[in-house]
Amino acid sequence: MTNPTAAMLVIGDEILSGRTRDSNLHHLAGALTAHGITLAEARLVADDQAAIVTAVNALRAGFDHVFTSGGIGPTHDDITADAIAVAFGVAITHRADAMALLGAHYDRMGSTFNEARQRMARIPDGAVLIENPVSVAPGFSLDNVHVMAGVPRIFEAMLAGLLPRLTGGAPLLSQSLRVERAEGDVAGDFAALAAEYPDLSMGSYPFNQAGVFGTNLVIRGTDPARLDTAMARLVALFG
Amino acid sequence: MTNPTAAMLVIGDEILSGRTRDSNLHHLAGALTAHGITLAEARLVADDQAAIVTAVNALRAGFDHVFTSGGIGPTHDDITADAIAVAFGVAITHRADAMALLGAHYDRMGSTFNEARQRMARIPDGAVLIENPVSVAPGFSLDNVHVMAGVPRIFEAMLAGLLPRLTGGAPLLSQSLRVERAEGDVAGDFAALAAEYPDLSMGSYPFNQAGVFGTNLVIRGTDPARLDTAMARLVALFG
Repeated sequence: MTNPTAAMLVIGDEILSGRTRDSNLHHLAGALTAHGITLAEARLVADDQAAIVTAVNALRAGFDHVFTSGGIGPTHDDITADAIAVAFGVAITHRADAMALLGAHYDRMGSTFNEARQRMARIPDGAVLIENPVSVAPGFSLDNVHVMAGVPRIFEAMLAGLLPRLTGGAPLLSQSLRVERAEGDVAGDFAALAAEYPDLSMGSYPFNQAGVFGTNLVIRGTDPARLDTAMARLVALFG
Repeated sequence: MTNPTAAMLVIGDEILSGRTRDSNLHHLAGALTAHGITLAEARLVADDQAAIVTAVNALRAGFDHVFTSGGIGPTHDDITADAIAVAFGVAITHRADAMALLGAHYDRMGSTFNEARQRMARIPDGAVLIENPVSVAPGFSLDNVHVMAGVPRIFEAMLAGLLPRLTGGAPLLSQSLRVERAEGDVAGDFAALAAEYPDLSMGSYPFNQAGVFGTNLVIRGTDPARLDTAMARLVALFG
């Protein structure tokens, strides 16, 4: 059985200009790995409708799931929901249930539920809302595309609610061995071992910590017994 | 005059599995912004030849420059150079100048210049080497694709050598105003201002620092005088 595949789409000028460092990708990668969904690709695009539409349509055709972050707030540069509607060729309206949620929230806060905030109730036809326990304005799933906020705390809370609804496979497990030898010294034997275990993924990552040079050898796979066997071989070679 | 455009391609299973947090994208974004090259898209793919070839060919056709990071080390999972050769349909060989550089380096270190390390001298036909002042193994530019290492210190050193060779435009400048008001409260006036300055890019980013909620309003553009004018208007509205 192969695990479901996923792609991420990070939307926002602030990442590509270097103003903000994205952290949602790293969070999603860890959460999907634990849930048994393989994150196979990620893309980052600017707040540009054509770029978002092209990326969403390429990714939703290529992978089982697409997770987006960013661009669903109240300001003029928040254009993700409209771009998703265009990508799917569906209408987008101020949806009644989202309007009710947001209206009640701003009433409680004593804030005006103005036109800008009402933008956050614009949801493409056919979507299912994703709950936002932090600041109420919902995300949504349309077919296999899951649209979430860019603010890390909200993205993480939305994902925590969404993920249990998605069918996962076997969690991707990993074990690693730290060796104080150069990558080029272990590469030959490590490649030979990797060739014996085509069902596992093996990678090597050089490090330099406080003047100590070495390599982290990492084995990844979904079968714990196979992982243990390969790891024992690795330890025998380099441990 | 429009600035040249660029895309980044980050290559490596370790990022998509959540093991490693990429930092080269953020570094490149800042460096390109200062150099007057617009980073318009980024993609992250696994150590998979088909995925790398597809991404490289899409990006090099769509943008003036493509910067890649990762997959040019000595181990079996380092497949970037071969994938670039496939993408361009050119041969790849152990190139004499790269072999000489690396051979001399490992001689000095007293290490064996073994088969694994010789892999790092495999360079696609027609490429220009990018110097690696940290660990010698070179990157390369082939047409508009610039192939660099994934280790941040090496990526940054390679980029520092490469960037002065690339024609930049006007640096993208930014100014920002921190207001302690909710995004939804400033959105209407901010959108009206943005509509008056179509040559500038305006974005808003909510924050929550130590219990203080507010919004950072950011204006970006290449003309300092226009930026100052718009900023004065912004301060008059919300300052």
